[in-house]
Amino acid sequence: MTKRMASWVASANNTETEFPLNNLPYGVFSSGDSDKCCGTALGDFVLNVTQLELDGVIDLGEPLLQSAAWNPVMAAGPTVWAKLRQSLIDLLSEGSADQAHIAAALVPLDQVTLHLPFTVAEYTDFYAGRHHATNVGTMFRGPDNALPPNWLHIPIGYNGRTSSVVASGTDIIRPSGQLKGPHDDVPRFGPSQRFDIELEMGAIVGTPSTGLISVAQADDNIFGYVLLNDWSARDIQAWEYQPLGPFQAKATATTISPWIVTKEALEPFRTSTPPREKELLPYLNEPKPLLYDIALTVWLQPEGADRATTICRTNYNEMYYSFAQQLAHHTSAGCPMRTGDLLGSGTISGPEKANRGSLLEISWGGKEPITLDTGETRSFLQDGDLIGLHGAALGADYKIGFGPCVGRVMAAIPSGYW
Amino acid sequence: MTKRMASWVASANNTETEFPLNNLPYGVFSSGDSDKCCGTALGDFVLNVTQLELDGVIDLGEPLLQSAAWNPVMAAGPTVWAKLRQSLIDLLSEGSADQAHIAAALVPLDQVTLHLPFTVAEYTDFYAGRHHATNVGTMFRGPDNALPPNWLHIPIGYNGRTSSVVASGTDIIRPSGQLKGPHDDVPRFGPSQRFDIELEMGAIVGTPSTGLISVAQADDNIFGYVLLNDWSARDIQAWEYQPLGPFQAKATATTISPWIVTKEALEPFRTSTPPREKELLPYLNEPKPLLYDIALTVWLQPEGADRATTICRTNYNEMYYSFAQQLAHHTSAGCPMRTGDLLGSGTISGPEKANRGSLLEISWGGKEPITLDTGETRSFLQDGDLIGLHGAALGADYKIGFGPCVGRVMAAIPSGYW
Repeated sequence: MTKRMASWVASANNTETEFPLNNLPYGVFSSGDSDKCCGTALGDFVLNVTQLELDGVIDLGEPLLQSAAWNPVMAAGPTVWAKLRQSLIDLLSEGSADQAHIAAALVPLDQVTLHLPFTVAEYTDFYAGRHHATNVGTMFRGPDNALPPNWLHIPIGYNGRTSSVVASGTDIIRPSGQLKGPHDDVPRFGPSQRFDIELEMGAIVGTPSTGLISVAQADDNIFGYVLLNDWSARDIQAWEYQPLGPFQAKATATTISPWIVTKEALEPFRTSTPPREKELLPYLNEPKPLLYDIALTVWLQPEGADRATTICRTNYNEMYYSFAQQLAHHTSAGCPMRTGDLLGSGTISGPEKANRGSLLEISWGGKEPITLDTGETRSFLQDGDLIGLHGAALGADYKIGFGPCVGRVMAAIPSGYW
Repeated sequence: MTKRMASWVASANNTETEFPLNNLPYGVFSSGDSDKCCGTALGDFVLNVTQLELDGVIDLGEPLLQSAAWNPVMAAGPTVWAKLRQSLIDLLSEGSADQAHIAAALVPLDQVTLHLPFTVAEYTDFYAGRHHATNVGTMFRGPDNALPPNWLHIPIGYNGRTSSVVASGTDIIRPSGQLKGPHDDVPRFGPSQRFDIELEMGAIVGTPSTGLISVAQADDNIFGYVLLNDWSARDIQAWEYQPLGPFQAKATATTISPWIVTKEALEPFRTSTPPREKELLPYLNEPKPLLYDIALTVWLQPEGADRATTICRTNYNEMYYSFAQQLAHHTSAGCPMRTGDLLGSGTISGPEKANRGSLLEISWGGKEPITLDTGETRSFLQDGDLIGLHGAALGADYKIGFGPCVGRVMAAIPSGYW
């Protein structure tokens, strides 16, 4: 297993930090009234790489760090990605020269505001977690028909709403929509009563493509990963989704983590997808292990509570399909992929009740509310609830983290305003 | 009924032109090796409005016509839209001054290449044609269950793939994908055998919004309209679409017309949606007539054939939901809308067999192939087929047209290349 790399920035060497030198995740930050800058997290700091490029300390051949978004770097391709990472390692490793100059570009993490790290081109959400698909299918169609017939052949996905992707920390207004219970004659319009989370990972396309690409090429084209919470209104979804899939149920917001963790940082944590129950068509075959071992948790803290309750513990290695398989499938009909395309993994549940990545599954459709550490119970989200996702790949003596991926549920807009 | 407006550009006064002074549709063109410019079509010409803004002849307060896309004008809002239209009418009306200067900015339409007229922010496709939904539902579920239970309450839509929206004239490569017939044990991967068209209109959002907007506001926010062909692989769709809707079946291409026809130009052709079979929820109520009377046709010309066959004649006034209702519904869960969002109406079929807007319906799922004027038959598209959509609002002595919306089907990429 790869060891922790030593940095002259002392807090990066703490075994508890999510941001050791091995990580170097990419984000966008501002501090006070300053403009947004690109940065990388290291220990308790963010390094202002926009400034270092202006100073000539980082040189990628052309200015790629000046637009307050990582898209220009993403578009530049794997050679530039490797060059930038190596430059940062050289600058930040224990014993590197010019520490004083670099230190001037370190800003304490607790003094910055983090923004969306990249401009999302398009957002696609998948449904590639077998436990999740089985749980949801069992609730809706019974255990014998839980998995749709295509599920073991296709990494099923649908196009999400790009304009609704928001940075961690953005308040989430409870959506309203058409609601119709099984015993109602007609729908009514009102606030969702079954507003939910979905614990997911996101993959970001760096290198664009046209036409069908192989799984190996797809893996090469991915720039990095984020945590992703796909907020979902289950009652809106139940009434609207036939025959063309979820629409407004998924259009309120999707929150992503502030830090993009690169493929290079996660390389030591690669692991294989599970054995195939049905043989896949050749275009989906994996040339190497394409999942990652990333421990994931979800916590919920009611408004005014003094503590959060962990409501899910799972791992990204539970997925049946990898991002590379999903991306290859995404291109199969000739669909062009662009720099900044965001792919959601699908909800990541594990085999046990404690591993379920949505409240729909945790409360089994509302029939089995969970009790929080505060004594309150939850079937679905209540106004004021703060939800956080956490993810970390765990090395022998270091962690690779994504930073917080949080959002608070705010009351629905009163009916007088619409 | 509004009368034809007279222009000093003689060809604009021809009763057969699609581009009288009443129209003034917006597009992006290039001529020879010149850069792309914004233009408006008039008779047999395109007027270079990018040049006229540079020359100071058109003044919108700030430069809005210099980016080879109409998005800056779209974002500027209705006051600027009205100002630009009035400026063009003043410059081009019979008897206006400075004709020589303006005439220098007229380029013959047959000497230009037309491009995508705007940068598409996101593409959403609806399913709001009752005849189409009934036809497709009857084929798949029988006549008693043709319309899904939500259909008379919700303008059903799904998110499409923005990167696949292309300009008229772009070749369309037949998609490949997972195919599984009803009697196959497992899917195979290969070229779609049921590749189809969908005759639609598209609406373009000019003014952005956040949160739920009213139908009246939605209508105000729309900048204009295009013709839209939503190429669809029926066999890929049949196997993939449960439970999350169409994905790769709709990801190959969506072709739009080169000219955006403005709301102002279509104002005289407003007409009402049909009587509601079920009362709509108040957020979908229409304050005024919101459909348009636009005659639509589809033609198909096989490769090498000397003539095209009209395979569909219908009208946009056949829709059950208007674009304003669709856009209002799109915002209902708080979904932000942006300048450049493109909404597809859904396939526009009419009540008779001759009015069907897709080959799926025309050939009734392949069971009733049609015979073309050349003697050939078609159930679905064949390689080399050239497909065109045509649309025109018909005044007493003038027409408002969209220009050609065409694409040719090219052979699938051979399997050795993937």
